Amino acid sequence: MFHHVKDLQFNARVSRPDPRFANLLLEQFGGENGELAAAMQYFTQAFGAKMPHPDKYDMLMDIATEEFSHLEIVGATIQMLLKGVNGELKDAADQSEIMQVMNGKAAKESIIHQALTANPQFGIITGGGVTPRNSQGIPWCASYIHSNGDLTVDLRSNLASESRAKLVYEHLMKFTDDPYVHDTLSFLMTREVAHYKMFEAALIDIQPNFPPGVLAADPRFTQQAFNMSNGTTVRGPWNEGEMPNMGKEWEYVADPIAYVKETQGITTTTDAYAKELKQTGKLDKEMSKIKSDEVISSEPEGVAQWSTYAEEK
Amino acid sequence: MFHHVKDLQFNARVSRPDPRFANLLLEQFGGENGELAAAMQYFTQAFGAKMPHPDKYDMLMDIATEEFSHLEIVGATIQMLLKGVNGELKDAADQSEIMQVMNGKAAKESIIHQALTANPQFGIITGGGVTPRNSQGIPWCASYIHSNGDLTVDLRSNLASESRAKLVYEHLMKFTDDPYVHDTLSFLMTREVAHYKMFEAALIDIQPNFPPGVLAADPRFTQQAFNMSNGTTVRGPWNEGEMPNMGKEWEYVADPIAYVKETQGITTTTDAYAKELKQTGKLDKEMSKIKSDEVISSEPEGVAQWSTYAEEK
Amino acid sequence: MFHHVKDLQFNARVSRPDPRFANLLLEQFGGENGELAAAMQYFTQAFGAKMPHPDKYDMLMDIATEEFSHLEIVGATIQMLLKGVNGELKDAADQSEIMQVMNGKAAKESIIHQALTANPQFGIITGGGVTPRNSQGIPWCASYIHSNGDLTVDLRSNLASESRAKLVYEHLMKFTDDPYVHDTLSFLMTREVAHYKMFEAALIDIQPNFPPGVLAADPRFTQQAFNMSNGTTVRGPWNEGEMPNMGKEWEYVADPIAYVKETQGITTTTDAYAKELKQTGKLDKEMSKIKSDEVISSEPEGVAQWSTYAEEK
Amino acid sequence: MFHHVKDLQFNARVSRPDPRFANLLLEQFGGENGELAAAMQYFTQAFGAKMPHPDKYDMLMDIATEEFSHLEIVGATIQMLLKGVNGELKDAADQSEIMQVMNGKAAKESIIHQALTANPQFGIITGGGVTPRNSQGIPWCASYIHSNGDLTVDLRSNLASESRAKLVYEHLMKFTDDPYVHDTLSFLMTREVAHYKMFEAALIDIQPNFPPGVLAADPRFTQQAFNMSNGTTVRGPWNEGEMPNMGKEWEYVADPIAYVKETQGITTTTDAYAKELKQTGKLDKEMSKIKSDEVISSEPEGVAQWSTYAEEK
Amino acid sequence: MFHHVKDLQFNARVSRPDPRFANLLLEQFGGENGELAAAMQYFTQAFGAKMPHPDKYDMLMDIATEEFSHLEIVGATIQMLLKGVNGELKDAADQSEIMQVMNGKAAKESIIHQALTANPQFGIITGGGVTPRNSQGIPWCASYIHSNGDLTVDLRSNLASESRAKLVYEHLMKFTDDPYVHDTLSFLMTREVAHYKMFEAALIDIQPNFPPGVLAADPRFTQQAFNMSNGTTVRGPWNEGEMPNMGKEWEYVADPIAYVKETQGITTTTDAYAKELKQTGKLDKEMSKIKSDEVISSEPEGVAQWSTYAEEK
Amino acid sequence: MFHHVKDLQFNARVSRPDPRFANLLLEQFGGENGELAAAMQYFTQAFGAKMPHPDKYDMLMDIATEEFSHLEIVGATIQMLLKGVNGELKDAADQSEIMQVMNGKAAKESIIHQALTANPQFGIITGGGVTPRNSQGIPWCASYIHSNGDLTVDLRSNLASESRAKLVYEHLMKFTDDPYVHDTLSFLMTREVAHYKMFEAALIDIQPNFPPGVLAADPRFTQQAFNMSNGTTVRGPWNEGEMPNMGKEWEYVADPIAYVKETQGITTTTDAYAKELKQTGKLDKEMSKIKSDEVISSEPEGVAQWSTYAEEK
Repeated sequence: MFHHVKDLQFNARVSRPDPRFANLLLEQFGGENGELAAAMQYFTQAFGAKMPHPDKYDMLMDIATEEFSHLEIVGATIQMLLKGVNGELKDAADQSEIMQVMNGKAAKESIIHQALTANPQFGIITGGGVTPRNSQGIPWCASYIHSNGDLTVDLRSNLASESRAKLVYEHLMKFTDDPYVHDTLSFLMTREVAHYKMFEAALIDIQPNFPPGVLAADPRFTQQAFNMSNGTTVRGPWNEGEMPNMGKEWEYVADPIAYVKETQGITTTTDAYAKELKQTGKLDKEMSKIKSDEVISSEPEGVAQWSTYAEEK
Repeated sequence: MFHHVKDLQFNARVSRPDPRFANLLLEQFGGENGELAAAMQYFTQAFGAKMPHPDKYDMLMDIATEEFSHLEIVGATIQMLLKGVNGELKDAADQSEIMQVMNGKAAKESIIHQALTANPQFGIITGGGVTPRNSQGIPWCASYIHSNGDLTVDLRSNLASESRAKLVYEHLMKFTDDPYVHDTLSFLMTREVAHYKMFEAALIDIQPNFPPGVLAADPRFTQQAFNMSNGTTVRGPWNEGEMPNMGKEWEYVADPIAYVKETQGITTTTDAYAKELKQTGKLDKEMSKIKSDEVISSEPEGVAQWSTYAEEK
Repeated sequence: MFHHVKDLQFNARVSRPDPRFANLLLEQFGGENGELAAAMQYFTQAFGAKMPHPDKYDMLMDIATEEFSHLEIVGATIQMLLKGVNGELKDAADQSEIMQVMNGKAAKESIIHQALTANPQFGIITGGGVTPRNSQGIPWCASYIHSNGDLTVDLRSNLASESRAKLVYEHLMKFTDDPYVHDTLSFLMTREVAHYKMFEAALIDIQPNFPPGVLAADPRFTQQAFNMSNGTTVRGPWNEGEMPNMGKEWEYVADPIAYVKETQGITTTTDAYAKELKQTGKLDKEMSKIKSDEVISSEPEGVAQWSTYAEEK
Repeated sequence: MFHHVKDLQFNARVSRPDPRFANLLLEQFGGENGELAAAMQYFTQAFGAKMPHPDKYDMLMDIATEEFSHLEIVGATIQMLLKGVNGELKDAADQSEIMQVMNGKAAKESIIHQALTANPQFGIITGGGVTPRNSQGIPWCASYIHSNGDLTVDLRSNLASESRAKLVYEHLMKFTDDPYVHDTLSFLMTREVAHYKMFEAALIDIQPNFPPGVLAADPRFTQQAFNMSNGTTVRGPWNEGEMPNMGKEWEYVADPIAYVKETQGITTTTDAYAKELKQTGKLDKEMSKIKSDEVISSEPEGVAQWSTYAEEK
Repeated sequence: MFHHVKDLQFNARVSRPDPRFANLLLEQFGGENGELAAAMQYFTQAFGAKMPHPDKYDMLMDIATEEFSHLEIVGATIQMLLKGVNGELKDAADQSEIMQVMNGKAAKESIIHQALTANPQFGIITGGGVTPRNSQGIPWCASYIHSNGDLTVDLRSNLASESRAKLVYEHLMKFTDDPYVHDTLSFLMTREVAHYKMFEAALIDIQPNFPPGVLAADPRFTQQAFNMSNGTTVRGPWNEGEMPNMGKEWEYVADPIAYVKETQGITTTTDAYAKELKQTGKLDKEMSKIKSDEVISSEPEGVAQWSTYAEEK
Repeated sequence: MFHHVKDLQFNARVSRPDPRFANLLLEQFGGENGELAAAMQYFTQAFGAKMPHPDKYDMLMDIATEEFSHLEIVGATIQMLLKGVNGELKDAADQSEIMQVMNGKAAKESIIHQALTANPQFGIITGGGVTPRNSQGIPWCASYIHSNGDLTVDLRSNLASESRAKLVYEHLMKFTDDPYVHDTLSFLMTREVAHYKMFEAALIDIQPNFPPGVLAADPRFTQQAFNMSNGTTVRGPWNEGEMPNMGKEWEYVADPIAYVKETQGITTTTDAYAKELKQTGKLDKEMSKIKSDEVISSEPEGVAQWSTYAEEK
C-alpha cells in the first residue's frame, strides 16, 4: 500500500519558466532512463523477491518508492518550468497571440511560442503540463524495464540502469543555468550513484553470483576471443592474458573462419573438455538444488496470503 | 513524496496456483485499462491541477495513490498465482520436465507446463513473475493515459477509464472460482465504481462544465444530426426532439450529400446565425477571462516552489 | 459498404501555405484524439451493437462515417497548407535550395525550409504530404481506441473522446490567423460537441446504465473515500455528504493505514453488509438475465448473414 | 465525404461460430497486410495526387473506398464467428462457466472457452467483438503504410501490399472449412489481384517510371553485383549478363574486399564515367523540370479550395 | 557467419560537422526505409529460401550483407557529422555553454546548440552519437520489414522497399551541399537502383510468378473495376480496355450500390463462371503440387544440418 | 564493411521439427534480450568509440559481428524447427488439412497444426519462417538497445545485457530434449558469459570508471539510505556499514518524512558539506578536462574520413 506525502523529498524550485528545458527534462519523467522506468523496474522485481529474499525485497521497495518520489520531483519541476502556458491556452478567444506565433514578427520570448517550439504537444495536447513521454514525444513503454526473476541478473540490470540515469542527469545539467534547477538535478543525479552502491552491495551479498542464473559456463566455449574483423587488430586484457576472476586464460582465435571450418563448427573440440564437462554437469546439479530449494522452501503450503497485518513494533 | 506500507490495502489471498488466470490478470497490471494506467493518469493530471485547483489536486493524488496500491494488490495476486514456476525454472539441470513439456505425454497439470502455455514469457523472460505487459504480451504504454490540462476534460476521461476498468474486472470474475481471488476482484471492481462517483461529484462541482474547455459551440454547426448511411434509418433521442440540456432541437439532415451541395459545404448558412454568432463571441471572451484568470492568478510571482514543508496541524 | 463523395462535407479552404500549422494539425489526422481515432472507435463498436441494438448501430455508423469525412477535411487542409513542398522536392537537381537550408543565410521564408523545420519527414519521407502520424511523428496506433462490447461503457468512452477532441481543436485555433482555416476548425470543434450530445442522449436512452456493465457494486467497498495523502486535507462533495445518485453517504477514511490494519485488509467488515450483499447477488442475477437475453435473443439460429439486400423504402 | 451503405459489398455469411478462426482473421482487420492498412495507404496517398494527377486520385479513392468496404466485410465476418461470446459474458453472475474453464473438466466446446483460448482479450477486453489488432494482439499501427508523395514509388508500394494481402488470404483459406467463409475469402483474395492489375496499369501509364523518383542512377555505381559472401557462389540473371531493361551488363565483383581496397572505397573509378556522369546531370535537370512543373502548375494561386460543389452531370 | 572488414565499402567523408543533416540522415540508419530495414528484410527472407532456392538464397544474403555494409556507411557519416558534440558533453563542468544555449544570446553556431536543436536526444541520450531511431526519434521497429515465405511475394516487397529507399536518398541530397556527403548519398541511392534490378531479374527468373502465391484468381471477382466515388469519374487503362497481361477486359461497375443489391452481394453471378471456376480449381491443384513439391523435396530427411563445412574450391 | 561466410559459426542441427520450441526461440531472434538486440547495441556503440578508443572499437565490432553470427545460428535453428510448415502452406488447394485443424478430431501431431497453435503468424504471415518478433509476436524494437556515448556507461549496459541473455538461454534449455538443439543453446549461452568477461576486462581497463560519466557524486546526497517503507525493516550491507569502495559510511534515514520536513527538503544540509563540495567542484573540472580532451584530441581537423584503405600487414 502506498501513502502520499504532500512535501517533495527534495525542495524543487524554479527561477523562471523555460519550456525548452522542460521538454529536455521529459526524458527523466517519461524517457527510457527516467524515474518512471527506474521505479517500475524495481517495483516489478520486488514481487518475485518477496518470499525467498525478504531483505532484498525491502531494499527494492525502498528504492522503488524513492524513485516514485523522484518522479514527482521531476514532474513538479517540469510543471513549474511551464508556468504561464496553461493560462495562455485558456485565454482561448484572444487573437493577439496568433500573430506573434504565426508571423514570427515578435514575441519570440512569449511563453506560448517557446512552448510550441520546444514541443508541439505542450500547446495542443498536454495543455502546458507534464506527460509521460520523452523529449521527442515517444510515450513511455514498459519494454524499457527488465525483471527476470533472478536477483543475480536483476541487480546487474539495475547497475546499468542507474549508470545511464546518472549520465542523463549529468548531460541535462549542461543545459540550464537556473541554480535551483541545477541543485535539484545534482540531488537526483547523486541519488542514482547512491542506489548504484546499494545494488552493488546487495549483489556482493549473494554468493556465488557468477555466472548470473544457475548454470555454469560450458567449458568448451568459454575462453575463446574471436577476432571477427580484419584490419588492424588490437590486443588487450579482453582477449589476451587472464580472464578476470575465472582462473582461465583467453584463447585468441585470430582466424575464426579457418577455425570454424577446422572444428566443423566447433563440434570437434568436445573430447578435450570431457573432464571439465563432467564437473560442470555436477556443479549445475548442485546449484540447481540450492537455488531451487531457496525459492520453493520459502513458498507457503495451502492458501497464500501476501500480508500479515501484524502490529508494528 | 511517496511512502510504502508493507500491508496491502486489501488482504489478497490465493487458494492455489493458476498461471492461466495469472496471465488474464496481467490486463489489470500492465493493460490498457489496468491499475498502472489509472494511477499514472490521475498522477499526471494532478501536476497541472495543483496551483489553480488545490482541492481537486488533493482528490487526484488520493485516488492516484490508491490506484498504485491496487497495482500492488494485482501484482501480489499474480505472483501468488504463479507459485512454483520460479522454483521449477531454477532447477535448471533437471531434465525430467523436458519430456513432459515437449512430448505432451504427461504432466499437463505441471505448473511449468501451465505457465508456458498461458504465456511463453512466464517461462523464459519473467522467470515466473509479474510484468507490466497485458495478457498478450504488449508492454504497457503511456499512450493509454490522457492528461490534457483541463479538468472539465480530464474528469470525463476519468469517468470513461473507470467504466472500462470496472467492466474488465467484471469479465475477469467469470474466469476464476477461487473465492479469495473472487473477493479481491470484487473489491477492485467496486473501488472503480467509488472512484467514478468521486470524479462525477468533482465534475458537477465545476460550473459551467460544458462544453469541455473554454469555447462555446459554434451555433452554425451544433444541432445537425447527419444521416450518413442509407438503408433503414432509425430515429431516436440522438437525432430528433430536444438535445439534452442544450435548449435546442436536433435538425435532422436526411440527405447530407444534397445538403452539402446546396450549402456549398455548409458555408452559406452563416447569415441565419449572425446574432447567435455574436453572442457566442462575447461568451467566449468572458469564459476566456474567467478560466485564464483562474490559472494565472494562482501562479506565484518570482521563484516557484512546489512544497512548503510547513508543520501539519 | 462505403461510398465516396468527392465534395468535402465542409468547404475547407486555405489562404496560404503554412507547414508549421500543417504539422500541428497532424494531431487531428493521426494523433490520439484525432478523426481517425474517432472514426475507428465508433466503427469498431458498431459491429457488436448491430444485432442487439440496431438503433444504436445506426447512430454509431452515422457518426463513424461523419468522422471519416472529417478525417478527409483535415487531410485536405494539411495538404493545402503544404502547397509548394512537393514541387520543390521534385526539383531534385536544383542546388540552390541547399545553401539556403544549410547555411541559414537566407530564405527562412522558403516553403521547403519551413516544412523541414516543422517536421523533418515532410521533406524526406512524406514528400510534402499528409501522413497518419501525430505532430511529433508517432504513427497512429489502434491502442488509442476503445471498444469493449458494452454500450454503457462504450458510450462513456465516446463522451471522453469527444471532450478531448473538442479541446484539441480549441487549442489549435489559437495558432492560426487564416480565417478559412479558423472556420474549418470551428466546424470540426463544434461537431465534436454535437456528437457528445448524441452519445449522451443514447446513454440516457439505456436504463439502467449505472454501474457500467452488468454487476452491481459490492456494498462492502462502495462508499469509502480514502485519504491516501498527508498534509492539508480537503473535503468536498467527492468525500463528504451524499454520493451522487447513489442513495448513500461517503464514509471518509481519514487514516487508511490504521483502517487497513484494523480491518485486516478490509476483510472483517463483511458481517455489517450481509443483507445488502444478498440483495446485490439477487440483483446481479436479474441483470445478468436481462442483459444476456438481450444479446442472445438477437442472434439468429443457423447460418448468420450480415446484410439482407432488401429494397429500400 | 463518405457515405455508408448498410449492405455489404459481398454477402458475408457464417455457418457456425469459430473463435479460433476469428482470431486468425484479425490479421486482415488490424494486421500489417490487412484491409485497414490498404485503405489508409491509398487514402493517404490520394491527397497528394489530387491536384497534379486527378485521374490517379480518382483511382486511389475508388480503391481506398473499396478497401474500407472490405474492412467492413472482414469485421462482420469476425463478429459472426464470435456469436455467443458477448451473451455469455453478459451472464456475469453465472458461476457454472467458471468450473468449465478453470478445471478443464468439460465443455471445451463451450464458445467462451474457445474464445478465451484463441485470444484472451476476446473474453476480457473486446467483449466478444472485433478489434483493430492482429492475431497476436498487436494494435494496428500507421507505420504499416507507405505514402511518399511520388506515384512511381507509391504505386510500387501498392503492388507489394496487394501481393502480401493476396498471400495472407490464400493462407487463411487453408484454415476454415465453412463454405460461406471460404467464398468470402475467395472474393477478398481475388479483389487484391484485381487491384494489383489496376495499380500496374496506372504505373505503366506513367512514362518514364524508372528509376522511381526524379534522379537517374549514378553511372559509377549502377552495374556492380557484389559477391558479398564466400562459399558456393551462384551466378544467375541477377549478376551476369544483361541488366533487365537497362541497356547495361552486370559487372560481377567476385572479391569485394580487394575491389574496395584497390578503388580506395570506389572513389578512383570516376574518370571512366566522366561522359556518362555529364549526361546523367543533364537528364536530372530535364526530369526535375518536367516533374516539378507537373506539380507546381497544378497548384492554384491564392486561396486554395479542395472541392467545387459543382453539379454532377 | 559474418566477418567485419574495417574499411567501408564506400569512402565516406565529411567536410564539416552538421548536426541538422545528421538528424535527417537518421532516417536511413533507423528509419522505415533505411539500411537496417533493408538488411533485416533480405536477411530474414533468406532463411526460408535456403533449401528450396539456394540460388536466390545466395542473392538475398549478398544483398543483405551489402545493406549491413551500407548501414555502417550511414552510421559513420552521421558520427562524423556530429564531430564535437561528444567532446562538448564530456566538458561537463563547463558552465559557459549554458548561457549560450538557454539565453539564445550567442553561439547559435556552437555545435552543441545545433545538435540540441536538431535532435534533443543527441545532447542528452546518445551522447553525440548515432542511434537506430528515425529523424523524429521513433525507434526502429521490425514491423517495417516483410518476409512471407514466398519469393513471388517477397521479391515484390523488395522492389517496393528499394523504390522508397531510392526516393529518400534523392530527397536527402537536396539538403546538403557537402560534396563528400553528396557523393556518398549518390552511391547509396544508386545501389538501391542496382538492387532493384537484381530483384527484378530474380522475379522474372521464377515462372509463373503471377498471381503471387499459389492460388489463381477467382474468375467471378477478377475483372470488375468498381466506381466507388461519385463526382467526376475518370476512365483510364486501370478501368477500361484490357487488363495488363491477363487476357481479360475490365468490367466497369459504374453504380456499385445498385450492382451489389442486384447481385445480392455478388453472390448470384456464380453460374456465369461455372466453367472458368472448374478450370481454376484444376489449376490450383496443379500449382499446389508444383510449389509444394519444390519445398518439400528440398528438405532433408532425419537430422537437419544448416552448414556442411566443406572445403571451398 | 561486412562479409558473409556461408558456414555457421556453430554447427546448428535439429533432430526433428518442433514449432512450439521454434516460437520460444524467437525470443533470442527478435526479443528484447536476443541476438539482434546484442548485435545492434554493440555495433551502435562502436561508432562513437572509434576515434577516441580504437582498442575498444575493435572489441565492440568483434563482439557485434559475433552476435550477428549468433543471430544467424538462432534463425537457422528456428527455420529447421519449422520444417514442413512452408510446404504444407504451399499445398494451398488441399482441403484435408482443414478438417484436422478446425474440428480438432485428429492430427494434433500434424506440423501445420502445431505451428498454428504455437504462433498464429507462422501459418498466415511468416509462411513457416523466422521473423524478428518475440515469442508473443512483438516486433523487435530499437528501444531495447542502449548506446550513450560513454564507455563507462555503455560497458555496464553490456554487462547487464549479457546477464539477461545468458539467463534466457538457460531457461530455454529446459524446454527441449533435442540433444543437438541443447548443444547449440549451450554454445550460445556460454558465449554470453565469455562476452561478459570481455566487457568486464575492458571496463577495468578504464580508470577511474566510477561514477559513470564525468561528474563526481554531490557529497550532500551520496550516503543516505532512505527507509521508504514501514513494516519490518531490514538492515544489510546496502544500508549499514561501509559503502562499497567509497570510503564512506551509509547514513540510515529511518524516518524520511520527518527528515525531509526538518531539512526543508534536504536543503538545509549544505553547510556541513561546504569543504567536500569545493573539492568535488575541483575534481569535476579536472575530469572534464581529461575526458573532454580525450575525445576532442582524437578528432581530425578538416575533412573527416572514416577508413584509410591501407594495406594490411
